[in-house]
Amino acid sequence: MTTHPTINKTAHAFDRTQIEGLLIKRFFYAPAFEHYGGVAGLYDYGPPGSALQSNILNEWRRHFIIEEDMLELDTTCITPADVLKTSGHVDKFSDWMVRDAVTGDIFRADHLVEAVLEARLNADREARGIASAAPAAPSSANAKKKKLKAPPAQLSDETVAKYESLLAQIDNYTGPELGALIEAETIKAPETGNALTSPVEFNLMFECQIGPTGQLKGYLRPETAQGHFLNFNRLLEFNNGKLPFASAQVGRSFRNEISPKQGLLRVREFTMAEIEHFVDPTSKAHPRFAEVAGTTLRLLPKDVQAGGSTEVVEMAVGEAVSKGVVDNETLGYFLVRIYQFLIKIGIDPLRLRFRQHMANEMAHYAADCWDAEIQSSYGWVECVGCADRSAYDLTVHSVRTGTKLVVREPLKELIEYEKSIAVFDKKLFGPRYKKDAKIIEETISALEELRLECIAKELAANGSTKVKVADGKEYELASDVLKIERRTFKETTREFTPNVIEPSFGIGRILYSLLEHAFWTREEDINRGVLSLPPSIAPVKVLIVPLSGTEVFRPIIKIISDKLRKAGLANRVDDSNASIGKRYARNDELGTPFGITVDFGSVKNGTVTLRERDSTKQLIGSIDEVVGIVEELCRGQIDWKEAGEKLPEYSGTQDAD
Amino acid sequence: MTTHPTINKTAHAFDRTQIEGLLIKRFFYAPAFEHYGGVAGLYDYGPPGSALQSNILNEWRRHFIIEEDMLELDTTCITPADVLKTSGHVDKFSDWMVRDAVTGDIFRADHLVEAVLEARLNADREARGIASAAPAAPSSANAKKKKLKAPPAQLSDETVAKYESLLAQIDNYTGPELGALIEAETIKAPETGNALTSPVEFNLMFECQIGPTGQLKGYLRPETAQGHFLNFNRLLEFNNGKLPFASAQVGRSFRNEISPKQGLLRVREFTMAEIEHFVDPTSKAHPRFAEVAGTTLRLLPKDVQAGGSTEVVEMAVGEAVSKGVVDNETLGYFLVRIYQFLIKIGIDPLRLRFRQHMANEMAHYAADCWDAEIQSSYGWVECVGCADRSAYDLTVHSVRTGTKLVVREPLKELIEYEKSIAVFDKKLFGPRYKKDAKIIEETISALEELRLECIAKELAANGSTKVKVADGKEYELASDVLKIERRTFKETTREFTPNVIEPSFGIGRILYSLLEHAFWTREEDINRGVLSLPPSIAPVKVLIVPLSGTEVFRPIIKIISDKLRKAGLANRVDDSNASIGKRYARNDELGTPFGITVDFGSVKNGTVTLRERDSTKQLIGSIDEVVGIVEELCRGQIDWKEAGEKLPEYSGTQDAD
Repeated sequence: MTTHPTINKTAHAFDRTQIEGLLIKRFFYAPAFEHYGGVAGLYDYGPPGSALQSNILNEWRRHFIIEEDMLELDTTCITPADVLKTSGHVDKFSDWMVRDAVTGDIFRADHLVEAVLEARLNADREARGIASAAPAAPSSANAKKKKLKAPPAQLSDETVAKYESLLAQIDNYTGPELGALIEAETIKAPETGNALTSPVEFNLMFECQIGPTGQLKGYLRPETAQGHFLNFNRLLEFNNGKLPFASAQVGRSFRNEISPKQGLLRVREFTMAEIEHFVDPTSKAHPRFAEVAGTTLRLLPKDVQAGGSTEVVEMAVGEAVSKGVVDNETLGYFLVRIYQFLIKIGIDPLRLRFRQHMANEMAHYAADCWDAEIQSSYGWVECVGCADRSAYDLTVHSVRTGTKLVVREPLKELIEYEKSIAVFDKKLFGPRYKKDAKIIEETISALEELRLECIAKELAANGSTKVKVADGKEYELASDVLKIERRTFKETTREFTPNVIEPSFGIGRILYSLLEHAFWTREEDINRGVLSLPPSIAPVKVLIVPLSGTEVFRPIIKIISDKLRKAGLANRVDDSNASIGKRYARNDELGTPFGITVDFGSVKNGTVTLRERDSTKQLIGSIDEVVGIVEELCRGQIDWKEAGEKLPEYSGTQDAD
Repeated sequence: MTTHPTINKTAHAFDRTQIEGLLIKRFFYAPAFEHYGGVAGLYDYGPPGSALQSNILNEWRRHFIIEEDMLELDTTCITPADVLKTSGHVDKFSDWMVRDAVTGDIFRADHLVEAVLEARLNADREARGIASAAPAAPSSANAKKKKLKAPPAQLSDETVAKYESLLAQIDNYTGPELGALIEAETIKAPETGNALTSPVEFNLMFECQIGPTGQLKGYLRPETAQGHFLNFNRLLEFNNGKLPFASAQVGRSFRNEISPKQGLLRVREFTMAEIEHFVDPTSKAHPRFAEVAGTTLRLLPKDVQAGGSTEVVEMAVGEAVSKGVVDNETLGYFLVRIYQFLIKIGIDPLRLRFRQHMANEMAHYAADCWDAEIQSSYGWVECVGCADRSAYDLTVHSVRTGTKLVVREPLKELIEYEKSIAVFDKKLFGPRYKKDAKIIEETISALEELRLECIAKELAANGSTKVKVADGKEYELASDVLKIERRTFKETTREFTPNVIEPSFGIGRILYSLLEHAFWTREEDINRGVLSLPPSIAPVKVLIVPLSGTEVFRPIIKIISDKLRKAGLANRVDDSNASIGKRYARNDELGTPFGITVDFGSVKNGTVTLRERDSTKQLIGSIDEVVGIVEELCRGQIDWKEAGEKLPEYSGTQDAD
């Protein structure tokens, strides 16, 4: 029987330099345009990073689009300025920046304040002889700052309490409030110590000109969502006019960050996966809520944060909805579905929490918002937003363009009601007012019912009434051309603007956090890094390793490779000259969960060995047995322990260099 | 036994208005930002279009990346201006535009000339009483123009011959040549009849500013290729330093077209799939060329076009390479692989040709280029380019940045050679020239060997030599500090810049052409459109249709849907109130190849019927039998005829409305 000694994944302290070095060396990603000095916030994904991203997206499509029958879209990145003016992004999608008053260096105001206050708290802890805990600050703040250093300097107990409270609420500060804070706490430009200018807004969208005339301004989309909203009518028709339904889109978005510094966590161009779930505003219940109501989530509600704390509350989502912590079932349903997705791809559940936005922090379009935050060495970072955008977007686009973006639902019972309307005697009215008749008729017809009733009274009392049209001109109408009548109307359909619940995934942030969670170094050698990615997500599932470069192994390698490919399992052959141990170590760094070794036993007996990445244990069997076991392992049908019950252990020493 | 009457797909003439109407109605795609008046050249894909695109890309990944072990990349769209200056795009990636001298309206010069000449030829044909053949012009030209109309007007026979010859070569015209043509043929602005301005270049890249300072200019990439080239060293290392290898990338690119008018065929933002195959320039043989050498392609070489003809040459690619029509095996190999891919997804082989670029038409980086052109109602349109970019890109980036982008190959035999080098007496040299020593040493060391030998002679003759450094300053060096010596060097590695063969796919163009090839209307009713997409590519594989909305069908529908999902087959339930015939007709328009009908027989006997889209014939069997057959059909393991041998025919009349 196979033995399973415990693998100690925490023998060595986590070292970000080490994993970032590994990820770049193995070309998971690399700074883009390196030969040209690089551009902050732009990264390229190499083969393992592309494959990992693609596996995460496939899992996302299965988990959301296929499982929930969503309607997939693919809309454009280039967006005319008008659209983003209407959506509020031109006016409000901005961050506050300050400049070093002397050098002109630019800082993002909130990040700078956070960094300075945290540095002071750290300096205080040092002076008091307290080990600086990581993460240093209790809020999600520390994910965004440039790490600053200050010499030990003790603060008063009141100041410490004040700073800690400020940091817990920092996301709630407006630009002018940040400016006041900079003044009150005498915050200066780091490095130079110069004064800072007042915070000014910087819009985060990239601008461009569409077409050769230079007259059509556009932006690169900062989110994929507008593409969903503008196609709402077509989507509704595609769904046979029925609600609720969700559209989904995977695509690039762009944000011209002021000063991006945290690797894949803050970039200027990124892949998003967004869902817009359209729902009847009078009923945000979800038919499958019962399936998820018992799931416990780690929640950080807004009132807890407002109280200066970041203690999570563990609560079943059913309870959270019934207590009003989470607003409605649909929002709660998606929080659990997001949780399930993140756990499935390998995120550590203890390093995942759902934080509610505070009032000032909320995006301009959101009525309520919860972020799935994942903890990494950069602190707690928003990786998925789950916002209730209410009817905001559909309403503003509809008002701006005059296009109805509504759902029409047949009423079960017909509604009858009376209403006053204006009735014109067309024979007299047209000839009397000529070209002005149209505007007069439009103006009166658009009046509210109460106003119409006043007119009725005036007509009855004076035999005429006066009406002012848009350009200020006034007309008198006599009771021979205009009458106000009560009429009965019947309504057979209800017309309403749906609300939208939007789960929005930052794929790069999830990918990086996942890599940190998966990384550890072997107890016996700190230089041997391992990425324990789940087989379903790992870029390559199987490494095929011939003992040496000899020709006799070639046909066997081809057989194994073909069988794996037929089973849909990505595999790679490493027939380089490095030792088997080195080749395996290289692939541990790539997160490859299984290795198949071809040796002279393969030629003689048709056997190969199967190595598992984390334990480095090996089993032995025929090619077909091993390929079959690998298939079951990768599909999640069995685990390594069960594999060990199906095949005998092999006690070679191939992992030695 | 099932009977298979021939389906007549050409009973009705092809009508572009009809298919474009269908594609927009069924939301394959739609003009983006319609509520805002739309933006030329921007389209959104709806659910069937997204699924179709995704299936084409999956097939592409299988056919190229997986089958040929390519290295996938995902690089950024935003590109600093420096990179695209080096690559030549800032200076040369442009089209020629002319303006209406009075109204200022803008036209793309070549498209306008083509449109006018073709209109004159058509008017001539009309005057001569000849039916205007479609495509009207013999070249690929007519794909790009706005259709113009002119009253019948006969031309001289010489003029007709001249115009036809001009049109066959139009892609070869430079801007000034187009200007001369406009003058010589008195071409005016259509509609207004005003004079046209001289052609000026318009760069097709979208410009943007990176970061908040406004000092870093960028462009949206016009191709994904530069992202491959700039990552060459990392890719080579990932491939263990070995050549040949190919990188592959699917992603968005952007071109600010002057006046896009042909639907999905000319857009400002599009999905590309690009391969960069890096190869030793001294050996462009391909190890798998033998597998494809016998495949016959329809070729249109440049000399045929230069002769004013567009007659394709059918030739096996082996012969084409050996005769020098196609330059090398690698290029020939990829032409066949491109051909195989396009046929596999459903392109009509008779409406596919490979056209070689003419000298002036070639992109600035290309040494040779063949376009896979697909014929649609817009004429022959480039859908895949296959260019030999030689060492152009790696060389220019290397020169500009000083980074070596080369392959080092161990030489089988060591090479020994002698070379003259400059040797400085460090003890005297440094103190004598102080801070200038470095620049002097660098300048002399960088001199060519012949120049060093001259210096050697001067030193021998005069005891000193003069050297001028970069800033023009001249220094005298005496023979005590500088000596020129012959030394022996040994070389163990060969260092070279690889060449690149680039197959580059415009996915939107392929997708649209495919839809045109797949479209036909039923003989009995011209209003019933069908998209005969291959099952592997069709957006949805199976439509599940309950006879009515009754509750008793629900569990059966769920069983079928779950079984299909488990088999990985996309399916959709249509339980709307429309008649079964209407529901099937709707799904014929969506290209859904199979339909499963659930009726009372399903409740009583557990049977369902299976309908095939093109023939509308039906078979009957148990749920498991039918799901099994559908799986084999979608995997291409059997065809409909063979399915008919496994299950009995069902002769219901469900297709009637």
